[in-house]
Amino acid sequence: MFKKLKEFEFKISAYQLALSTMNYDAVTVAPKLSGEYRNERMSFLSGEMFKIMQSKEFSDLIYELDKQSLSLSERRIIDLYKKNLDDLKNITQEEFVEARKLSLDAFTAWEKAREKNDYSIFEPFLIKNIETITSFVKKRNNGLSVYQNLLNDFEEGMSLEQFDAFFQKIKDELVPFIKEIHSRPQINDALDNKTFSIESQKAFTNDLLDYLRYDNTFGHCSVSTHPFSSRLSQNDTRITTRYDEKHLAGNIFSVIHEVGHAMYEHQIKDEYADTMIHDSYTYGMHESQSRLFENCLGRSRAFWEYNYPRLQNRFEQLKDVSLDAFLQAVNRSEVSFIRTEADELTYPIHVLIRYEIEKEIFSGQADLKDLRNIWNQKIKEYLGIDVKDDLTGILQDVHWTEYSSFGYFPTYAIGSAYAAQIYNTMKKEIPVDEYLSSNQFEKVNAWLKENIHQHGALYTPNEILKRVTGETFNPDYYIQYLKEKYSYYYGKTTD
Amino acid sequence: MFKKLKEFEFKISAYQLALSTMNYDAVTVAPKLSGEYRNERMSFLSGEMFKIMQSKEFSDLIYELDKQSLSLSERRIIDLYKKNLDDLKNITQEEFVEARKLSLDAFTAWEKAREKNDYSIFEPFLIKNIETITSFVKKRNNGLSVYQNLLNDFEEGMSLEQFDAFFQKIKDELVPFIKEIHSRPQINDALDNKTFSIESQKAFTNDLLDYLRYDNTFGHCSVSTHPFSSRLSQNDTRITTRYDEKHLAGNIFSVIHEVGHAMYEHQIKDEYADTMIHDSYTYGMHESQSRLFENCLGRSRAFWEYNYPRLQNRFEQLKDVSLDAFLQAVNRSEVSFIRTEADELTYPIHVLIRYEIEKEIFSGQADLKDLRNIWNQKIKEYLGIDVKDDLTGILQDVHWTEYSSFGYFPTYAIGSAYAAQIYNTMKKEIPVDEYLSSNQFEKVNAWLKENIHQHGALYTPNEILKRVTGETFNPDYYIQYLKEKYSYYYGKTTD
Repeated sequence: MFKKLKEFEFKISAYQLALSTMNYDAVTVAPKLSGEYRNERMSFLSGEMFKIMQSKEFSDLIYELDKQSLSLSERRIIDLYKKNLDDLKNITQEEFVEARKLSLDAFTAWEKAREKNDYSIFEPFLIKNIETITSFVKKRNNGLSVYQNLLNDFEEGMSLEQFDAFFQKIKDELVPFIKEIHSRPQINDALDNKTFSIESQKAFTNDLLDYLRYDNTFGHCSVSTHPFSSRLSQNDTRITTRYDEKHLAGNIFSVIHEVGHAMYEHQIKDEYADTMIHDSYTYGMHESQSRLFENCLGRSRAFWEYNYPRLQNRFEQLKDVSLDAFLQAVNRSEVSFIRTEADELTYPIHVLIRYEIEKEIFSGQADLKDLRNIWNQKIKEYLGIDVKDDLTGILQDVHWTEYSSFGYFPTYAIGSAYAAQIYNTMKKEIPVDEYLSSNQFEKVNAWLKENIHQHGALYTPNEILKRVTGETFNPDYYIQYLKEKYSYYYGKTTD
Repeated sequence: MFKKLKEFEFKISAYQLALSTMNYDAVTVAPKLSGEYRNERMSFLSGEMFKIMQSKEFSDLIYELDKQSLSLSERRIIDLYKKNLDDLKNITQEEFVEARKLSLDAFTAWEKAREKNDYSIFEPFLIKNIETITSFVKKRNNGLSVYQNLLNDFEEGMSLEQFDAFFQKIKDELVPFIKEIHSRPQINDALDNKTFSIESQKAFTNDLLDYLRYDNTFGHCSVSTHPFSSRLSQNDTRITTRYDEKHLAGNIFSVIHEVGHAMYEHQIKDEYADTMIHDSYTYGMHESQSRLFENCLGRSRAFWEYNYPRLQNRFEQLKDVSLDAFLQAVNRSEVSFIRTEADELTYPIHVLIRYEIEKEIFSGQADLKDLRNIWNQKIKEYLGIDVKDDLTGILQDVHWTEYSSFGYFPTYAIGSAYAAQIYNTMKKEIPVDEYLSSNQFEKVNAWLKENIHQHGALYTPNEILKRVTGETFNPDYYIQYLKEKYSYYYGKTTD
């Protein structure tokens, strides 16, 4: 009967591949006027996939398999299908297609709103998205609140209370720590006021990809406004980045971040291909790998001991900038408006803000016509700065253009915390710094494959963390990691 | 009932868009190892589309509509659907999917064969492709020979006898003319032995695209091994090109050629979108537009009077090359092995050779295990040169990797001949040279839209030619155009 399931999975995977390809194409190369035509057809194809996944034949098969004696991986696969069937069982194909169309149109409206720096263009779509996901989730009738359902969709196994506790710790521990750090003498940014040609940045991207062992046999790096990674198949895990000649670090850390995602996907066991476990169990787990790459590894001295001379080789203007000065520049902390450009230390505060807003939205506390103000007030409250316009305010993130992406943001902070916990163990088990400084990144990849990547969604994050680190999720590692790192950099400059 | 047809067309267009996007992606950015996975799924999706188009419901609808009183465009649409239904009626979905898979795999084998410069890797796939299309065509039972059927698939309305007569004229008139031209003192290639940076070539591509009024609202230019154009939708007509720092003209004329195709697609009436007439009636007609752009317009003095200073601006090394020397260089004629790199004059000879080989294949005259020799002998016979290896021989073209593309080659020569006939009229009706030399290409596009593009497949080539030029297809314009042009260039150098 798993043979029958394989046939379904093959069909589903064909639609998924088509949709992923069309999406990657849409944000990298598609002409400006092509969107509406494509959106209508992508919605239709999504509906065809939905039809297969919600068909009686498929559902019967899953519940039949559910009764059998199953291996660990089979059990996980069937459980995930059951959750999926359950979550969507009261939604019709028409409703689903309409919601998909809404999100694709919301994305187009968001792009237009950004062009005009005018939230009011996007606002009705955002409200419609909120209404749509609320009505969909209520149909689940599973006794959980709307927001708990949404959190579950991205970080199953973490309750609202656990999230609250996690963010409370960030408020209690990090908010005062950030204040203190920012009251010390500040670090100069050695990369500031310099121009870095896109051509040379592209060349250095290739240097980095080589170093990370990400190559064109299974990967590709395109350019898009918002960097992301996308798995099209086991041997096709793409990334994108963006270039700005004023902002060298932007491209560098986007690339390292996205390769973290892509490497995860690429290293999942072949045999899980097209099944429900050919992915991470949660988004937080996925994000842990990109954050591990970007921050724990990618901003470390050992990483740049090898790579900085190569960077200097690409950019004459860095000749007189020391490795120390460069490390300080990419490990500075400064309050800012944009989440994706925030430094490692203030980053979780941006997530905290979005978490609180989403909680207010789905508890009914927030007036949906007042979201821009709510946003601006939170930024003021936690970061102490006044939002100047929508582009640097509520229009900055793409996530809310997708009706089903509420509840996604919190996983970014959780992922960073998982990363710190994993990194703590990794350093004990393998000589990470030695590997990084001597161009042996394949050994880092191998450790991650062995301990985390290969398993896909076979284990929950807590199961993975228990197996790898000896204990379940413990946010203290994250707080400790940030405090040590920033005390080091900001202590040093006060000498 | 046309509303019902629209629903079918919408579904079909969704699959077509997915497949076109996946194909464009595959040849421009997809990782090397991603092919097999994608091929299997593209075959499946093609099968789903086939299922809709061959369904009883669809077929009933078409034959029902066929009985009604129809407008000119409706009549053409229904006739084309009928032909399609008829051609495929005895082929099962399984056979169709298998054939699609075969072609996708044949493409992969061809790429490998090219890597190793070894035809034997591709040979079994080529033979299987020939057997597949032969068996498919025989099932049509329409009384026409296999090759006449194949010619019809690409150039409906032209009989085998008409093709024979056309190619006979090329043999009689052009082969001796070419011999004579090549016996005169030869032109120096002012572009030879120079290196042109890819970066500057890319910048000039953008100059050219601006000039041709092809922009990113509806177009995009990527890089692929073999330049092509692809319509994803009315407002998404992509092209590709290739860059070689030793070969500046290669990129330039590929771009102009492909924009000719893309502009045609973009200028077809909106209301025909997704119908059978949202395309040219034949491949020859399509090719006529790319050849018109590339050769008649793109190699003319007027074109370069405006563009050559811009090219010199991009390339310091052309500073001392005069416009005359440049025009001579891009209008030289020289016997060569590769069709796509052949000059305008020897080009039809390459097509003639393929036409004769295909005729021998499908009449059963050719031993399929001997195709490489047959190829090499024909090259020797008509071009007088000895093929050195498979890469410059039988492995050069992508077309035979696709089981359904036999019969395609002849349209390239026919298209060039249509172009010459259309160009002859165009020059009488509008001041082409003035438009070209004063950066008013939009007026050339407008004339083509008005007279040819907008109609899509509403008219046959002969109907179009009659409307535009006052007579049906007359290959004499082509012969005359080539003789005049090359007598001019090769007369001049003997001064």
